[in-house]
Amino acid sequence: MLRSHTCGELRLDNVGEEVILTGWVQRLRDKGGMLWVDMRDRYGITQLTYEEGITPQNLIDQARTLGREYVIRVVGKVVERYSKNDKIPTGAIEIVVHKLEVLNPAKLPPFLIEDETDGGDDLRMKYRYLDLRRTPVRRNLELRHRMMRETRNYLDQHYFIEVETPVLIKSTPEGARDFVVPSRMNPGEFYALPQSPQTFKQLLMVSGFDRYYQIVKCFRDEDLRADRQPEFTQIDCEMSFVKQEDVLNMFEGFISYLFEKEKGIKLGKLPRMTYADAMKYYGSDKPDTRFDMRFVELNHLVKNKGFKVFDDAELVVGINAKGAAYYTRKQLDELTDFVKRPQIGATGLVYARVNEDGSIKSSVDKFYSPDDLQHWGSAFHAERGDLILILAGNKDKTRKALNELRLEMGERLGLRDKNVYSPLWVVDFPLLEWDEDSNRWHAMHHPFTSPKPEDIELIDDRPGDIRANAYDMVINGVEVGGGSIRIHDRRLQEQMFTLLGFSHAEAEAQFGFLMNAFEYGAPPHGGIAFGFDRLCTLFGGSESIRDYIAFPKNNSGRDVMIDAPSPISDTQLNELHIRMKNIPHQ
Amino acid sequence: MLRSHTCGELRLDNVGEEVILTGWVQRLRDKGGMLWVDMRDRYGITQLTYEEGITPQNLIDQARTLGREYVIRVVGKVVERYSKNDKIPTGAIEIVVHKLEVLNPAKLPPFLIEDETDGGDDLRMKYRYLDLRRTPVRRNLELRHRMMRETRNYLDQHYFIEVETPVLIKSTPEGARDFVVPSRMNPGEFYALPQSPQTFKQLLMVSGFDRYYQIVKCFRDEDLRADRQPEFTQIDCEMSFVKQEDVLNMFEGFISYLFEKEKGIKLGKLPRMTYADAMKYYGSDKPDTRFDMRFVELNHLVKNKGFKVFDDAELVVGINAKGAAYYTRKQLDELTDFVKRPQIGATGLVYARVNEDGSIKSSVDKFYSPDDLQHWGSAFHAERGDLILILAGNKDKTRKALNELRLEMGERLGLRDKNVYSPLWVVDFPLLEWDEDSNRWHAMHHPFTSPKPEDIELIDDRPGDIRANAYDMVINGVEVGGGSIRIHDRRLQEQMFTLLGFSHAEAEAQFGFLMNAFEYGAPPHGGIAFGFDRLCTLFGGSESIRDYIAFPKNNSGRDVMIDAPSPISDTQLNELHIRMKNIPHQ
Repeated sequence: MLRSHTCGELRLDNVGEEVILTGWVQRLRDKGGMLWVDMRDRYGITQLTYEEGITPQNLIDQARTLGREYVIRVVGKVVERYSKNDKIPTGAIEIVVHKLEVLNPAKLPPFLIEDETDGGDDLRMKYRYLDLRRTPVRRNLELRHRMMRETRNYLDQHYFIEVETPVLIKSTPEGARDFVVPSRMNPGEFYALPQSPQTFKQLLMVSGFDRYYQIVKCFRDEDLRADRQPEFTQIDCEMSFVKQEDVLNMFEGFISYLFEKEKGIKLGKLPRMTYADAMKYYGSDKPDTRFDMRFVELNHLVKNKGFKVFDDAELVVGINAKGAAYYTRKQLDELTDFVKRPQIGATGLVYARVNEDGSIKSSVDKFYSPDDLQHWGSAFHAERGDLILILAGNKDKTRKALNELRLEMGERLGLRDKNVYSPLWVVDFPLLEWDEDSNRWHAMHHPFTSPKPEDIELIDDRPGDIRANAYDMVINGVEVGGGSIRIHDRRLQEQMFTLLGFSHAEAEAQFGFLMNAFEYGAPPHGGIAFGFDRLCTLFGGSESIRDYIAFPKNNSGRDVMIDAPSPISDTQLNELHIRMKNIPHQ
Repeated sequence: MLRSHTCGELRLDNVGEEVILTGWVQRLRDKGGMLWVDMRDRYGITQLTYEEGITPQNLIDQARTLGREYVIRVVGKVVERYSKNDKIPTGAIEIVVHKLEVLNPAKLPPFLIEDETDGGDDLRMKYRYLDLRRTPVRRNLELRHRMMRETRNYLDQHYFIEVETPVLIKSTPEGARDFVVPSRMNPGEFYALPQSPQTFKQLLMVSGFDRYYQIVKCFRDEDLRADRQPEFTQIDCEMSFVKQEDVLNMFEGFISYLFEKEKGIKLGKLPRMTYADAMKYYGSDKPDTRFDMRFVELNHLVKNKGFKVFDDAELVVGINAKGAAYYTRKQLDELTDFVKRPQIGATGLVYARVNEDGSIKSSVDKFYSPDDLQHWGSAFHAERGDLILILAGNKDKTRKALNELRLEMGERLGLRDKNVYSPLWVVDFPLLEWDEDSNRWHAMHHPFTSPKPEDIELIDDRPGDIRANAYDMVINGVEVGGGSIRIHDRRLQEQMFTLLGFSHAEAEAQFGFLMNAFEYGAPPHGGIAFGFDRLCTLFGGSESIRDYIAFPKNNSGRDVMIDAPSPISDTQLNELHIRMKNIPHQ
């Protein structure tokens, strides 16, 4: 190695040793005849020291030519520092330099390579390799590495085998849009990149692998949002001879193991909530349960008192923002504006505050008597100083809007501490959901999810009421994982495809291999997949998965650092038997 | 779980216990009033037993309806076996069944699910999920899993960080053909799938990650051979502040660790051979050194004796096939036919055998005296019973042909034992090779490989003589890994691109991001990548990497199980702004 030690390892014990260090110039200070250079590598920072009159002048002159981010190699002696720096592990020593070599100079970086940088998003994306030099960014990827390692440790301990499944697979119409890859050797045909290794992991169960996992890249060509990337990483798992309970226990164990290893937090038994309850009490299938503020339905209390908005509403439902009675008119107006945003879509907000004397004052006092309002208060277990917020309208939309308002209030009231973790299982998802656009049933999870046996009889008359053996793990309002017990019977799988509007021929062409496999001895099986980027983001306490991906793409799916995607040559197009359509001027 | 134990874990200690097992019916034997069912899962085989007159008749009748590969669940009692089976770990016990449940019946498999199967390649590829049920195939993937785990263990212990690099990157003209992915959001533009994460790992070094690795899928759209797959897995590594020696030591340690963990073999220090010597003595840059049989050059001994073939040849070179003097005329004719095959391309074969009396008899006795032949014998250190085989012609082609002949003789003489491992480093590769087709220099390794500093002066006059800081790890004639110390200086990288025929604009467009990165403080760095599929194949003692890939593709790049690639819909084509060219009828 070009070094004898890293910049993070020298201590008082090393005083007197001749050492060789390599790294980057973090900072120079030149003051009162003393010159200090902070030298940085992945492992830490070590101080180099020069003193006028003592250090040979040529060494001092050379050091003064150094710039930020120069790559240097120094030979020197470890000495005890006069004034120690307790903030860094090497703070008790410094290096008296005998020799310095510039391994590579550096231009002035376009932004500060410090914990707090002055670079904007775009600049930092273009120079991602410089942004990655910053300690907080590097720590994110170190966290990711540890999470990966502990994931494998846990699964290996439980006899899971990591098996790599193919990246070049077959395009299927179900689910999100595929990225496709034209085949040169098979003109007119395309591979697709996997949205998940779903069918392959099921085939591995048919093969008797019993317990499979893979930390694997998956791909979805969808319009991007802040927390989506065209390529993302999944912890993909499957087990044979299991019921739902077994999968929940195994992966409850997994998440507990990660929390204990990484954060020293012991999770208890994870609570479970049915999908129906999650929707009823939180208006979301991924409730943030760090705080209570559960929905209270008010239909039985508010109808027929002359308030048309409530009388016409399918659902009147509210939350108790505890202690927020102090909210001013202006703040309440802000909340009204918030719920009326198009993406939230409520038509208005009714509030009622519990005064210090126990009386309740609402925005609809003209329709409801003080007694009526006291009944409301009881329904919400409201106490003095509480603020009740109520929405009304169509059931699904109102729940969705109240979920947003609940999260907003949680945020405003400081109830969403990122250092508090509240994981739970959401279970008993519906098997199907009606899609207005295509006017047909869609699989809520995917077409391979099994219905609960006791609900199968509903298949002809009330398919929407069939519950699935499907489950999500939710932490702090984020769905970190989801899975199901799968269908392992050819006939049931065929029935499922029919229900989803596949013709027999379509089902056969797309998934014939899987249905055939079910005829050769398929064991009962089920599994789960965790969104690894999201899991890291949650453990790291950040908002954006991008912070945990070494080279992320932007919202247009571009890598602005390498400038991809980009045009390819006519030769390449010809070899692939494709040509571009006329593309409107952009 | 649906089971209390696996089929591999019950022992004498469990006798008397009530157990529940799940698995596949491997075999039924029905003989003399006794019925035995071998039940299989990933962990082993357990015998179920039924006895006429003792077992209730309905249970016996039910068992007789079972077929091979039925998935069953049995409840029963562990009893000691009357006649033990020492071949399997569960051979001391059997299960007296109280209850049997068929979880899934199975059609008769298209081939035998046994260690030795009757299924041909095509059938086993189509029903890969059944082939994977066979113990030898499953063991291959279990080996792969262990190799992956031990690879990570070693690298983690040495402070390497696993970082995931993107799969959707930019197409570059250098190297093999890219697979490309049309971008829907960026019309007319394409991503490429990485042939290796080369530039990203170098950027991670610029970022100060110091030590990086990744076990990662890579892609090459090349015409396939038996040992190639369009997608393959690499162990990709990079280190900063290193010289070649440091990389060799680190990865010598790695391969030794793998051999010790997986095979209990302690490798000593790995020998090193220059590229020049490898070509001179083995005619290959990946010599199989399990056996000696080094090339001996004969120009100084054979010229000007009237044998025109040798007189006209640039190189006359041979090997000593020790102990093969017994070869018959027919066998020698076979060897002559072998070297004359078009893919080997020699024009003929000269032989000389050392008789028991020490005399030497050659196929060119008419040109060479007994004394001449004795000189040949000395050059080869030939002893009684040895067979000397000589080729002549153009230097490069003759070496290449003699390499093939040497390997063939090694095979025939039983010198290539797959349980013997002979790893070595081949070093000092040329930086460049001349490409006749494009009439320009190509990078022998890749354009980021650094020249040896002492050879840089040859850049203008004799670029072909520049040696690179490049190295391959070769085991048993297989290149399992290769790497180099990289260029970390913008000017040198530019010079390299110029030498390779890139215009300034081309170099900038393709690799500008990397050259820019070199200006912001790039450390000296180097690395290596191992072909993971090949490494597993070598450790497993097989010929084909396909045996170590769960779902491989065939020689046309097809996955015949899922039938990919396949046509996609017009909607998909439209969304991607592409259309197919008229494809000639196939």
